Amino acid sequence: MKEVGIGILGFGTVGAGVVEGLQKHSDLLAERTGLRLVIRKIADIDLDRDRGVAVDPSLLTTDAAAVVDDPSVDVVVELIGGTHVAKELMLRALALGKPVVTANKALLAECGDEVYAAAGQNGADLLFEASVGGGIPIIRALREGLSGNRILQICGILNGTCNYILTRMEHERLPFDQVLAEAQQAGYAEAEPALDIDGLDTAHKTVVLASQAFGRSVQMSDVQVEGIRGIDSLDIEYAAELGYRIKLLAVIKEDAGEIEVRVHPALIPCSHMLASVSGVFNAVLVTGDVVGETLYYGRGAGREPTASAVIGDIADAARNRASGTPNRIPAFVALKDVPTIRAADKIRTRYYMRLSLKDAPGMFGRVANILGHHGISIASVVQKEVRSGAYVPVVMLTHAAGEGAFRAALNEIDALDEVGAPTVRFRIEDFE
Amino acid sequence: MKEVGIGILGFGTVGAGVVEGLQKHSDLLAERTGLRLVIRKIADIDLDRDRGVAVDPSLLTTDAAAVVDDPSVDVVVELIGGTHVAKELMLRALALGKPVVTANKALLAECGDEVYAAAGQNGADLLFEASVGGGIPIIRALREGLSGNRILQICGILNGTCNYILTRMEHERLPFDQVLAEAQQAGYAEAEPALDIDGLDTAHKTVVLASQAFGRSVQMSDVQVEGIRGIDSLDIEYAAELGYRIKLLAVIKEDAGEIEVRVHPALIPCSHMLASVSGVFNAVLVTGDVVGETLYYGRGAGREPTASAVIGDIADAARNRASGTPNRIPAFVALKDVPTIRAADKIRTRYYMRLSLKDAPGMFGRVANILGHHGISIASVVQKEVRSGAYVPVVMLTHAAGEGAFRAALNEIDALDEVGAPTVRFRIEDFE
Repeated sequence: MKEVGIGILGFGTVGAGVVEGLQKHSDLLAERTGLRLVIRKIADIDLDRDRGVAVDPSLLTTDAAAVVDDPSVDVVVELIGGTHVAKELMLRALALGKPVVTANKALLAECGDEVYAAAGQNGADLLFEASVGGGIPIIRALREGLSGNRILQICGILNGTCNYILTRMEHERLPFDQVLAEAQQAGYAEAEPALDIDGLDTAHKTVVLASQAFGRSVQMSDVQVEGIRGIDSLDIEYAAELGYRIKLLAVIKEDAGEIEVRVHPALIPCSHMLASVSGVFNAVLVTGDVVGETLYYGRGAGREPTASAVIGDIADAARNRASGTPNRIPAFVALKDVPTIRAADKIRTRYYMRLSLKDAPGMFGRVANILGHHGISIASVVQKEVRSGAYVPVVMLTHAAGEGAFRAALNEIDALDEVGAPTVRFRIEDFE
Repeated sequence: MKEVGIGILGFGTVGAGVVEGLQKHSDLLAERTGLRLVIRKIADIDLDRDRGVAVDPSLLTTDAAAVVDDPSVDVVVELIGGTHVAKELMLRALALGKPVVTANKALLAECGDEVYAAAGQNGADLLFEASVGGGIPIIRALREGLSGNRILQICGILNGTCNYILTRMEHERLPFDQVLAEAQQAGYAEAEPALDIDGLDTAHKTVVLASQAFGRSVQMSDVQVEGIRGIDSLDIEYAAELGYRIKLLAVIKEDAGEIEVRVHPALIPCSHMLASVSGVFNAVLVTGDVVGETLYYGRGAGREPTASAVIGDIADAARNRASGTPNRIPAFVALKDVPTIRAADKIRTRYYMRLSLKDAPGMFGRVANILGHHGISIASVVQKEVRSGAYVPVVMLTHAAGEGAFRAALNEIDALDEVGAPTVRFRIEDFE
């Protein structure tokens, strides 16, 4: 049986999962691909740590570049992460015409143009199923299964840490800070959680998806990003009363020749499939102009799910390498007829607002008037009994309004003497 | 740009959708694949009917075999359906080494061994994404995205007609016969609905999935099949009270070297993702030993969703044809270490039972004793007030029990004088 040599760069959590998976399913993969996938080298800066997986010590090296260059390595698997060393090694492999498999969303989001171009110029495979949605084969679905569709919309829950925090806040009625602290202790959140909870990781994945779906270069600066830091469990409760659940959502939506690319907490109807995505799971809703709505769901991170996606890509790269048909599906296909990025002010959605109003006569009318002057109409209002103090929480859901108009109205409202704490607002996604 | 000639056999609903999609997205597909997909011939027995799609009349022919043989046809798309003419044409194309794209689950389920072997012997692509789950790229996920996994379980809602009927029965509290009649009028159910409502269509799809997942030949006779005909809306209501929803479920499950392959209405927990699948939508839950749970959702039938899947396969076949790498992923990969089919009697699940008991002292104890003698323990009981007549409906949920033991117990229970109508029973799937 033909052998295909695998070189692994980065022997961390995912790297160890990939090695374990390749060992465990060596025969199964050989039967399915007709190829024997052989690990030839594993590079890491730390060769001593126990990863819970047995490897021949002679495979281990600290010299990642030598792994890339090794003539017995046919497929390079980049699991180092980050945008510096990883990029150099990736470009080095592609320049040698070697296929690269990666899980590195940050690199693809921040240097996508450069690495996609390198793959194209060298006619080498660059596969990155593991970069979005962990084990969910979403990139493959976009590139192959839905290739006969123009993609109209992608909405996703793409960060397991955020979804875990929001799920626990909702189910156990706990405050954000407490859930975050417990998630950190349990290993579901990083000690430095900003990348996750401020929405940056989701934005990276969103850029990767948007580039694939629309065949245009999408930059991080094109994405409107808000995270979930400091979300008040009060709003989770109000949302639930109104039939909504708050999720950190990635939204990529084409409309009239423009696309919106945004990441933010959003109220989504409890009856929608995405609302059922709990805990560390991810899901991606993809709407194509022929197929309609499709959805893909699974574990969005972690050693095994990510390893599953990496191994699927390794099998693919190995098939292409062995049959002499690399770059069968290019890493990025630039389409001619591409939408422009919609300016933030022009993005229209419905809004949830929680106002803190002094319990004085006429207050509600004044707020409604300000909204009306900016062309924003109110869909529903919930006013609760005063809990304590002079300010009453009033929750309003609006009809669709432009971001610019909404922000202007909010500035006027929050400047009123009778308004206490600044108004809390979230977008609503009804998927209609 | 290189051209790839497409020959379409069958110009019915799906055929017209495929032609329309190829026309509409001709440029998009050319950009994505680097190939110009050109329809060279379309065969149908009826050339006069208006399909709502404009085609050059010179493309149309009644001679399907001539389309297969036409040297300008590189990819054959079989959309005739059935297992006779379709099979002959498919084998004819494969014998010429031409790739075949099909949506024909009946043919794959009933003659899979023969057509998979023909594809393998001739080294030709046989692609059938459209045969299961309409537009959902589930076959591709199993064959490629999850290739690094041993598949442990697949549970699916695979028939849109049945799911539409069950959803309407539940939401509108209507009886089966009325919903079926209305579905037939609305075009959601066939005039002859047996294939759908008796579970045969779902069984066809289940055989296709099971063969792919487990790498063994699975026959229709291996599948335990029950349909939804005559389901009583009373049971849908009781299930809802207990936190369950009734769905026609395909279950393929590996356990201790055996697989269960079955199709039947089942109670599934309302909180599970599959319970949120409403109306004509389909979904497939796939559990892999590395990736864990994944789920795929979308429209399971209809002109456009099916066309989306067919066109994705055409693009794939065209890529392989143009690059000279046919049969890149074989239609069927026989694995060495395959599970045997579990005998029906040995299948263990929890059960829902609705008994019709005479309101006499000691009745409940007698039923419980019979169950106990067969090793079946009761998890919960709901007894309602008598509505009318002498018989009281009593609903019981059991713990897991073997089919054989359960059937024996049920025979004894139903033979009691104090039992009225035969006990209604459904399996419960908790996905644990």
